[in-house]
Amino acid sequence: VKKIPVNLGPASYQVLIANGLLRHAGASIRQHMGDTARCIVVTAPCIARLWRKPLASSLKAAKINFDVITIPDGEKHKNLATIETLLKKMTIAGADRGSVVIAFGGGVIGDVAGFAASIYMRGLPIVQVPTTLLAQVDAAIGGKTGVNLSTGKNLVGAFHQPKLVLIDPNVLETLSDREFRAGLFEVIKCGVIRDAKLFEELERNLPKVLARDASTLMRAIEASVTVKADVVSQDEREGDLRRILNFGHTVGHALEAATNYKTFLHGEAVAWGMVAAATIGQEAGITPMSVAGRVREIVLRCGPLPAVNVRPNDILKFIQSDKKTLHGIPHFVLPTRIGATTISNKISPAMIRHAVAEITALSGKSGAK
Amino acid sequence: VKKIPVNLGPASYQVLIANGLLRHAGASIRQHMGDTARCIVVTAPCIARLWRKPLASSLKAAKINFDVITIPDGEKHKNLATIETLLKKMTIAGADRGSVVIAFGGGVIGDVAGFAASIYMRGLPIVQVPTTLLAQVDAAIGGKTGVNLSTGKNLVGAFHQPKLVLIDPNVLETLSDREFRAGLFEVIKCGVIRDAKLFEELERNLPKVLARDASTLMRAIEASVTVKADVVSQDEREGDLRRILNFGHTVGHALEAATNYKTFLHGEAVAWGMVAAATIGQEAGITPMSVAGRVREIVLRCGPLPAVNVRPNDILKFIQSDKKTLHGIPHFVLPTRIGATTISNKISPAMIRHAVAEITALSGKSGAK
Repeated sequence: VKKIPVNLGPASYQVLIANGLLRHAGASIRQHMGDTARCIVVTAPCIARLWRKPLASSLKAAKINFDVITIPDGEKHKNLATIETLLKKMTIAGADRGSVVIAFGGGVIGDVAGFAASIYMRGLPIVQVPTTLLAQVDAAIGGKTGVNLSTGKNLVGAFHQPKLVLIDPNVLETLSDREFRAGLFEVIKCGVIRDAKLFEELERNLPKVLARDASTLMRAIEASVTVKADVVSQDEREGDLRRILNFGHTVGHALEAATNYKTFLHGEAVAWGMVAAATIGQEAGITPMSVAGRVREIVLRCGPLPAVNVRPNDILKFIQSDKKTLHGIPHFVLPTRIGATTISNKISPAMIRHAVAEITALSGKSGAK
Repeated sequence: VKKIPVNLGPASYQVLIANGLLRHAGASIRQHMGDTARCIVVTAPCIARLWRKPLASSLKAAKINFDVITIPDGEKHKNLATIETLLKKMTIAGADRGSVVIAFGGGVIGDVAGFAASIYMRGLPIVQVPTTLLAQVDAAIGGKTGVNLSTGKNLVGAFHQPKLVLIDPNVLETLSDREFRAGLFEVIKCGVIRDAKLFEELERNLPKVLARDASTLMRAIEASVTVKADVVSQDEREGDLRRILNFGHTVGHALEAATNYKTFLHGEAVAWGMVAAATIGQEAGITPMSVAGRVREIVLRCGPLPAVNVRPNDILKFIQSDKKTLHGIPHFVLPTRIGATTISNKISPAMIRHAVAEITALSGKSGAK
C-alpha cells in the first residue's frame, strides 16, 4: 500500500493507494482511525450496485457497524435539497457524534457527503473513498466540500478535511471512457503545474494510460495525488500556492457555466481551459511556444472532446463574476515551463477572447465531437 | 465602551458593550475589522422596523456599503429552507469573499445568519449584533451556529466565530417582558456556574434588573458576557469546561422537545432545568441544600413561567437521545456551591423522574401561568 501524507498539523491524514484496497477498507479504517463504532456509507445507486459488496464485506470483517445511504448522483442533484434529505436519513439511521461518514463515489458524492458530514452535529469525521479518476486524483483530497445554489455553482460549502482517503484504482474498471478521460485531464494538469516527470511519462505512455494499464495508471495516480497532497499541505485554504491547482479552471469554469453545465464534464472543460491558458500564456510572453504546444498536443491526443461553441464575450463575463475573481480582475495560472507556473493578473480581455476563439477553432478541426 | 476579549489565538475577537453602541456600529466595524468594502445585514422584519435606522446611519457614516436582507424570525423558520433563501438573496445582492455579514437580531437570527455566513463561499466573516438579552449574554458569543432538521433541533451547523460582537443594552427596551425574563435565566445560569458575585447581586437587586435599570442591567450583562467569553476562550469546542454552560440545559432541552418547542421559550425551559438540576444535585449529595434552595428561589422570583405538564418518562427519553448524550448516559452539570459546578454521569433515571415531578408540582403552586 502506497501512503501519501497530507500534512496539516493536527488535521493531517494519509492517502492510501493500492489495487484491491477496497477489500481492506474496514481494516484500514480500524488501523488509521482507532475505535470506530459505526459508519454511515454515503453512495450513489450505480456505485452501490457495482462496488458495495467488497466495501460492505470489509467493514463487516473489521466489525464496524454501518448503514448505507444512497443519494442521487450527478451535478443537478448537488444542492441543498439533497443535503437536507441526506442529513435527515443520517438522523433516522441514528448517526451521532461517534459516527464516521464514508463518501463512496465520484466527485459529487464526495462533495455532498463531505459537506453533510461537516455540518451534521457541527462536524463528523469523514473518510473519502473516491471511485472516479477525477475524484481519486483531485476532489477527494484537500477538504473542499460543497453544493450549488440555483444562483451559482459551488457557492455553499465548507473546508472539511477527511481523516483518511482510500484509493483503489481497480474500481476505475467500471468507469466509462469519457469519465476516465475527464479525470485524466486533471492528471495532465498535475504534470503541467508541478511534475515534469509525470508529464513526460504521459507523453511517452499515453496509449497505455488510456488502455488503463494497471502499473502505468498506478504511477500516474500516485504522482498526481502527491502533487495535490503537497500543495494542500503547504496551503490548506485558498492562498497563493493552492491557486496553481486552478490551472485550466478559469476558462474551464466559465465554459461550464456558459453551457449551463450540460455540455462538458468538469475535466473536459478543464482540458479546453488548459489549452486556452497555454495560448494566453504564450501571447502574454509567459509560456514558451514549445511548452504551449506540448500542453495543446497532449490534451488533444487523449481523444474526443465536446466542441466549444460559445461567444468569447460570454466566457469573459463568467470569468469576471467568478467567486475567485476579486474586484473583477481575473488571475490566470500560466505555465512558465512544464512543471512550473506563475500567476498573472495582467491578462487583457482581448487575450482571453482570442484564446476562446482558438479553442473554438481547434474543436472544430480535431476529432472533437 | 466595555471591551471583553474572547481569546482564541488567530480567531480571537472582542465583545463591545455600551448603551447607544448601535449608533457607532459602523465606526466600530471600521476600527476593529479594517477595510470593509461591504456588509450584508441579516435581520428580522420586527427588528428592522424598530432598530434599522441607527444601524443603517452608522454604516453610512462609516462609508460602508450595505444591503439589508430580512428573513422570517422564530424557531419554526430556523431551518435549511430559510438558509437556502438567505444564501440566494446574498448571491443576488452580490455578496463575495470581500463581504461581511452582520447578524442583527435575536438568537434565531444569529444562528441562521452565522451558519449562512460560515458556508457561503466556504466562509464569510460575521459580526454579531444581538438584540435580545438571551442573544447578548449567550447565543452571540462562542461561535455556535446552526439550524434544525424536521428530525431534531440544532442538528445541523458549524462553529463559526464572529470577528466582533456589538452589544447595545438600549435595544432591549423594545423587548417583551417574557423575552426579557427568558434571557435573564441565562444571566442567572452564569452566576450559578462561575460568578457568585453576579448571583448575589441578582439576589439583592432582582427588582431593579426586572425594571431594566440601566446601570444594574449593564453590570449583569457585562458579568455574564465575561463568564461566557472566559469559558469559550478556554474551550472553543465541546470539551469539559464548555459543558458547564449546559447547566439547566439537559432537562431544559428535553422539556422543549417534549412540548414540541411550543410551550417554553428556550430561557424558560432552562429556568425549569436549573431548578431540576438543583434538586438532582441535592439528591445526589453534590449540591448543598442551601445552594439548591437559592437557585430555586431566584428562578421563581423572576416572575411567571409556563407550567410543566409532561410525563417524567418522556423527559427521560429525550435526555437519553440528546446529541450531547454519548452511549445513552447523560452528563449533568451540578452546582457544588454558588459559582462552581461539577459534572456527574451517575444520575439515575429515578432522580431525573423525581426532579421532573418536583418542577411539575412547583409550577402548579407558583405564580406560573
